[in-house]
Amino acid sequence: MTKQCDVVIENVRIASMQKNGKAYGILSQSCVAIKDGKVLAIFGSSDTSYQSSKKVDGENKWLLPGFIDCHTHLVYGGNRANEFEQRLQGKTYTEIAQQGGGIQGTVNATRDASELTLLTSAIKRAARLVKEGVTCIEVKSGYGLDLDTELKMLKVAKQISEHLPVSIIPTYLGAHTVPIEYRSNPDDYVQFVCDQVIPAVAGQQLASCVDVFCESIGFSPAQCRKIFAAAKTHKLNVKAHVEQLSDLKGAKLAAEFGAISVDHIEYLDPKDIPALKQSGTVAVLLPGAFYYLSETQKPPVAALRANKVPMAIATDLNPGSSPIASILTIMNMASVLFGLTPEEVLQGVTLHAAKALDIANKGQIQTGMDADLCLWDIEHPAELVYGINQHRPAAKWFAGREC
Amino acid sequence: MTKQCDVVIENVRIASMQKNGKAYGILSQSCVAIKDGKVLAIFGSSDTSYQSSKKVDGENKWLLPGFIDCHTHLVYGGNRANEFEQRLQGKTYTEIAQQGGGIQGTVNATRDASELTLLTSAIKRAARLVKEGVTCIEVKSGYGLDLDTELKMLKVAKQISEHLPVSIIPTYLGAHTVPIEYRSNPDDYVQFVCDQVIPAVAGQQLASCVDVFCESIGFSPAQCRKIFAAAKTHKLNVKAHVEQLSDLKGAKLAAEFGAISVDHIEYLDPKDIPALKQSGTVAVLLPGAFYYLSETQKPPVAALRANKVPMAIATDLNPGSSPIASILTIMNMASVLFGLTPEEVLQGVTLHAAKALDIANKGQIQTGMDADLCLWDIEHPAELVYGINQHRPAAKWFAGREC
Ligand SMILES: [Zn+2]
Ligand SMILES: [Zn+2]
Repeated sequence: MTKQCDVVIENVRIASMQKNGKAYGILSQSCVAIKDGKVLAIFGSSDTSYQSSKKVDGENKWLLPGFIDCHTHLVYGGNRANEFEQRLQGKTYTEIAQQGGGIQGTVNATRDASELTLLTSAIKRAARLVKEGVTCIEVKSGYGLDLDTELKMLKVAKQISEHLPVSIIPTYLGAHTVPIEYRSNPDDYVQFVCDQVIPAVAGQQLASCVDVFCESIGFSPAQCRKIFAAAKTHKLNVKAHVEQLSDLKGAKLAAEFGAISVDHIEYLDPKDIPALKQSGTVAVLLPGAFYYLSETQKPPVAALRANKVPMAIATDLNPGSSPIASILTIMNMASVLFGLTPEEVLQGVTLHAAKALDIANKGQIQTGMDADLCLWDIEHPAELVYGINQHRPAAKWFAGREC
Repeated sequence: MTKQCDVVIENVRIASMQKNGKAYGILSQSCVAIKDGKVLAIFGSSDTSYQSSKKVDGENKWLLPGFIDCHTHLVYGGNRANEFEQRLQGKTYTEIAQQGGGIQGTVNATRDASELTLLTSAIKRAARLVKEGVTCIEVKSGYGLDLDTELKMLKVAKQISEHLPVSIIPTYLGAHTVPIEYRSNPDDYVQFVCDQVIPAVAGQQLASCVDVFCESIGFSPAQCRKIFAAAKTHKLNVKAHVEQLSDLKGAKLAAEFGAISVDHIEYLDPKDIPALKQSGTVAVLLPGAFYYLSETQKPPVAALRANKVPMAIATDLNPGSSPIASILTIMNMASVLFGLTPEEVLQGVTLHAAKALDIANKGQIQTGMDADLCLWDIEHPAELVYGINQHRPAAKWFAGREC
């Protein structure tokens, strides 16, 4: 019996990223049928049961799932090129903070910016990722800190998907930094996050996750614990920036709350890794910030690998520590700086990135999953990791539509 | 009296990169007149003497000279993604070399490739640079090593400019590595380079420069001296890869021959810097190879700056140690990894890169110079260095033609 579908892609090599025991989840079939935005079937060229008026010849190129950038802060006002220049001219961080720079500078610019201004600049940044084959982006709030600006950021994030072929997963990151108006009573700010903002975010369904920055210059484990508890009360997923600059045992705390990911983790103690394994938490590595801040402490990749904790990779796109609008560059950095194999890197922006966002229907080429697909004119998937800026998708489908 | 021109670009902020005492050579005028591929005049908006049927409104964006990538090896056969993957899986360099990998692998693939195959892949790589605002690329031979393949590489390099809006400056790099057939008598290979290839390259005008790799794993200073002498006899400019892995005093030797550039120079002894200043030699920094090879020894930037030796920046685009087809990424690396200021970086891909190639008519927006221009939708030139993959030219002119 023939089955009618919307598109049939023929003559491709498929790196499905499924965990099927083959490197890159490579499949022996060479055709994909798409219907209603999903992969209807993956089949061999001799199978004639899938019919469509729209057939695409993949010319033996490689088909991969669209990439998922599972950690960004790409909605913000202003930029920090000026500070970057001043630092290279010899100014200190303290001098820059004193003249209103640093993260508080971005908070001020974000509070001042209109929704349209924020959206326009966010679309530009997201478009840079989309051109590289990204079909799903997580976007955090955290440069508003007050109720109105945080909700504004989350609304802007959602709107990006009306302008670009990409899914957006918004995350509420109220505990990013203590805002200037709460500097003398940070616990009151935590209370405000728990009592006012989280209920509003959950009530208006503006985010599916709550994130924190657990660090001496951010929020203490005790403060993060309160926020996690509030998130859980409102049935929101938990994520956490932990162990970026020091080991505060944020990862263990996050695991206790069943966090879907712990991010950065340069200073993670390998002893805490089994707890992550047990809670099913993904380790999200962010080599962009490591590079940009000239850090030297690397995340415990060998121990994560040995404990089979899934590793994801993301741009951490933000104006202060990772103004890097390129998932492909970050993929190369994950290999060059952190020693991940090309296969681990590709899992990190597909399969494992989906897990870090708790989305079940993306990150693999698999029957029934979303038809977010990229075709690459390469000889082998490892080429996407080996170089920088060498490739762009030869063709791309988002939710089954060519784009 | 009115003067007719081909194009007038109005309403731009001009970072001319001239050394006019202002940061980035910023000019007060806001208009540029182009005629016959050159900048005819730079003038203020109240000046009505330059007329054209083609007027472009620059919308207050920034106009900069097209970028010059003054050190690449972008013509080659094959790629080395496979080796990259094997190294990350734990194989050693020796194991990879034993199975025919490494530079000799690229030499074999380049010898085997047809001119058309080489050209097609080189155009793809050059196009990645061109899209980022590069209007002039230096391309080295050095993966053929025998007479025919070296000439083939240089011919292919020249042909790139027939397919893309870019000038190509080819360089003969016979002394890149000792080919396998001369491994037991490298001095004979040097003799072959001097007696056979340099005269052929000069006679057929296939390159304007001769380059060497002066290193323990490349060629000794005594061998390089012979090659420099032969180059000078044939009125070719001299460039040199020196002090990348150790200090063999290659820079001093190159300065003695009036080299137009010394490249890499991580291990350059600051004591040798005055010799470079005296010979008018440009220091070409290649942060891509530094990054990709996980080097830790940085070039003596502070001493170069103090001695007013001009610094250029380039991609070093090559399959083994810098498969990075992005001048913009390299510009960011020059700041983040080597500490150059954004202004130094921009001089390094314009003014100083032109000097490193001994071309007088490019690298600045200046009356009489080539109209290779890029318009950027940014608030300040430092933004081009501060982030990665955030920007592409909003408009571009090559030899006065919009492209
Ligand atoms: Zn972050
Ligand atoms: Zn080189």
